[in-house]
Amino acid sequence: MTRVSDFVDEKRLWDRHMAIAEHGKTGNGGVNRQALTDHDRAARAQLAGWAHARGFEVLIDEAANMHIRREGWEQGAPVVLSGSHLDTQPTGGNFDGVFGVLAAFEVLEALEDGGIRTRRPVEAVVWTNEEGVRFAPGCTGSMVFAGVAPVGDLADARAPDGARLGDELEKTIATTPHAKRRKAGLPLAGYVEAHIEQGPRLEAEGLTIGAVTGIQGGASYEITVTGEEGHAGTVPLSLRRDAMRSAMAIVQGLYGLMADPDDIVKFTIGRFQAHPGSPNTIPGKVVFTLDFRHPDAAVFNARADAIEAVCREQAGPCGVSVFTRHRNQPSVFPGEVVAMIEQAARDLDLPVMAMPSGAAHDAQLIAPLCPSGMLFVPCLKGISHSESERAQPADLAAGARVLADTLAAMANA
Amino acid sequence: MTRVSDFVDEKRLWDRHMAIAEHGKTGNGGVNRQALTDHDRAARAQLAGWAHARGFEVLIDEAANMHIRREGWEQGAPVVLSGSHLDTQPTGGNFDGVFGVLAAFEVLEALEDGGIRTRRPVEAVVWTNEEGVRFAPGCTGSMVFAGVAPVGDLADARAPDGARLGDELEKTIATTPHAKRRKAGLPLAGYVEAHIEQGPRLEAEGLTIGAVTGIQGGASYEITVTGEEGHAGTVPLSLRRDAMRSAMAIVQGLYGLMADPDDIVKFTIGRFQAHPGSPNTIPGKVVFTLDFRHPDAAVFNARADAIEAVCREQAGPCGVSVFTRHRNQPSVFPGEVVAMIEQAARDLDLPVMAMPSGAAHDAQLIAPLCPSGMLFVPCLKGISHSESERAQPADLAAGARVLADTLAAMANA
Repeated sequence: MTRVSDFVDEKRLWDRHMAIAEHGKTGNGGVNRQALTDHDRAARAQLAGWAHARGFEVLIDEAANMHIRREGWEQGAPVVLSGSHLDTQPTGGNFDGVFGVLAAFEVLEALEDGGIRTRRPVEAVVWTNEEGVRFAPGCTGSMVFAGVAPVGDLADARAPDGARLGDELEKTIATTPHAKRRKAGLPLAGYVEAHIEQGPRLEAEGLTIGAVTGIQGGASYEITVTGEEGHAGTVPLSLRRDAMRSAMAIVQGLYGLMADPDDIVKFTIGRFQAHPGSPNTIPGKVVFTLDFRHPDAAVFNARADAIEAVCREQAGPCGVSVFTRHRNQPSVFPGEVVAMIEQAARDLDLPVMAMPSGAAHDAQLIAPLCPSGMLFVPCLKGISHSESERAQPADLAAGARVLADTLAAMANA
Repeated sequence: MTRVSDFVDEKRLWDRHMAIAEHGKTGNGGVNRQALTDHDRAARAQLAGWAHARGFEVLIDEAANMHIRREGWEQGAPVVLSGSHLDTQPTGGNFDGVFGVLAAFEVLEALEDGGIRTRRPVEAVVWTNEEGVRFAPGCTGSMVFAGVAPVGDLADARAPDGARLGDELEKTIATTPHAKRRKAGLPLAGYVEAHIEQGPRLEAEGLTIGAVTGIQGGASYEITVTGEEGHAGTVPLSLRRDAMRSAMAIVQGLYGLMADPDDIVKFTIGRFQAHPGSPNTIPGKVVFTLDFRHPDAAVFNARADAIEAVCREQAGPCGVSVFTRHRNQPSVFPGEVVAMIEQAARDLDLPVMAMPSGAAHDAQLIAPLCPSGMLFVPCLKGISHSESERAQPADLAAGARVLADTLAAMANA
C-alpha cells in the first residue's frame, strides 16, 4: 500500500521554511512578522504562489484565513483540515506556526506527488493573527471560522501603530487577488495541527513525536488601575489615590484567588507598567497583564469569572477596568485522534508519547467543530517566542510524515 | 531707600516662564524637559542668551551648573547665590525649578534696572539634573558643587536610552560656548532658593509666601529582583523563579515596614518594570524604585537602614539587589535666614508663614556650605510633577520681590 508519508520531501519542506523566514527576518536568526503587516502579507503571497503553481485552488474568507484545497473523489464530502499560522511574536522564531502551515502544504504536495486520491477533500489553512501581539485578542482567524465572533465584532480593534483590524484584513485579502472568496466556516471531517512543542519534554526524553491529548484553558487580561498623580514628597499617604498601591492590593487579592495546593493553576503577571514612571511621582495609572490557565473547565471558569470582582474589591480609592484579551476554554482532544497520531508515528518507527499542551493554539478553537488533534515535534531546549527558536529538518519532516498519514486516514475513513 | 523689589517686573518674569515652557512642551499644558536632553540644552542656551544680552558674565562648571554673575563692589567677597533647576519630570509643569532660576535672574535684572550696587557678588545658578529621572541620583549638579561626589564618580551613570552622563555633560557644556569654564564649588555668603510649594498649604490658607524651615530627609532606591524566564503556560508555579511574584512579596514587606499611623512617612513606588514584559512570559527580572521621606532623622535613618533586610527576607527563590540612588538627611535651615525671608515679606505687605518642605531641593545639598534657606509661593491645588501644575503671575512676582530684598540684604550684610 502506498503511504502518503513516502512522498514527504525533507529538503523541500526545509527550503520552504527558509523561504518564509525571509519575510520579516531580524538579522538575529529570527523574524518579526506580526499579523497583517506587509511581511505577513508577503509570506502569504509566497505560499499562494506555490499553491497556484501546483494547481491547487486557493480560497480566502472574511477573516483572511487562507485555504489551499485538494479535492476528494466524493462529491460534497466534509473537509479534512490542517494548518496553523504565519504571524509571529516581535522577536519570534522561524518555526512556531510556520511549521504547521508548511507541513499541511507538504501533505498536499505529497498526495499530488504520489498520485493518491482521497475520498474527502484535504485543505491546508493559514489562520489569521494567532499571536495576538499587534491586535488583541489572538486567534482572530480561528475564532471567526468557529463562529465564536463575527469579524464585524473584531474589526475595530486597533494596533499600537493605529491601524484598524478591519482595514488590515481587507488589505491582506487584496494581496492574494487570485484567491476565491469564501465565507468563514465549513463542514469538517477532522482537524490536525502540527506544531513545535514550545517545551522541553520531547527533546529531554529523546522522542520525535508528541500526540497531544488536549490544551489547558487559557485567559489573558489587561488590568488598568487609575488614580491621581502627585508629588512623592508632599502628598500624605492618607490623601493619595496611588494607582501603584491599589494595583499591589489587587495583585495580592488575585494571588489569593489563584492559590492552588495542587500546583495545577498557572498564573503569570508578565507586564506591569506605572505611569508616568518617575521615581518621585505618585503613579496616576498602572497597567498590568494577567495570564491564567487551567485544564479543568469548571475550575478555569470559576476562577476566571471571579477576577473582575477581586480587582474591584481591592482597588481602594482608585478606579479599575479589566479588559479580556482572550479566554479560551480547555480542550480535550478525542482519544481516537490521539490514537491515530500515535499509530501513524509507530508505523513510521518514530518514538512518540501522548502529552498535553501548555501553550494555546488555533486547534483549541476548532476542537468543538470536529474530531481534532495536534502533533508536536521537538524544538531546541523548548525555547520558543524567541529568535533563538530552532528545529531540525529531520524532525520537521518526521512530523510532516505523521501528519500526512493521519490526514490520509481521516480523509479516507 | 531704594528697594530692589521695586524693580521686579511681573510681566518680564512671566514672559520668561512662558518662553522656557516652549522647550519640551507636551501639548497638554506641561513639558517633558528631562535633564541633559536637547530641550534642556535649548532652555539653558536661551537663558544664557538673555544673560549675555544684559551684559552679565556666564560661567559653567564640570557638572554643567550654569552661573550668571553680577559683580559686587568688594574685591574677592564670597558670593550670594540663588537658583534652582530647568530640568523636569517626563510629564512635568512649567514652574517646578524654572521659577527658582528665573526669580534669581529677575533679581539680577532688577538690581541692574535700579542701578543698585551690592557689596558682594550675586549669582543666579541653574543646577544640573535635580529631578534625577533620566540619570540617577538627582541633584547631580548641587552634589558636585557641594563636594559630596566628584563628577568622575557619577559620569558613568546611564540613561534608559543608553546615554552616558559624562558624555551628556560635555555636550551640554558645549551648548553655551561663550560661558567661562569654572571649577565647581565657591565660597558662599548665603543661598536662597525660590520654588513653588508643590503642596496645598499656602493656597488653602490664602498666603503668598512660605519661609521654609527645613526639608525632610529623602532616600531613593532602585530594587532589582532576578529570577528566571519561562513560558507562562508550561512551568509549574512551584518550580518558578518568578521575579514578579518575589517583587510583589518584597513590596508587601516594605509597605509593612513603612506603616505609620501618624501619616508622616511618605513612601512611593513610582517605577516598576518587568522584563521581558510579554503577557505570556514569566518575568526573569523586575526593577522598581522606592522613594521614602521623613522629617525626623532618627525615624528616617532607622527605616531606611531596614529596607535592604526586608527585601532579602521576602525575595523567596529570587535574587535581589538594592541600589541607593540617594539618601539625603533631613535639613534644618538657620533661623536667621527664615527670619530674613519673613521680614522681607512683611515689609512688602505679603502674607507669610514659616513651613517645612516635603519635597527635596538642591538647597538641601547647599545648606551645609553657608546660611541657606528657601521661599515658597503657592501653586494650584498643590499639584506638581504634573502637566496640570499652575502658578499665578502675581504670586511668582511676589516671590521674586521677597527673594530680591532677601538677597540684597545678604549681599550687603
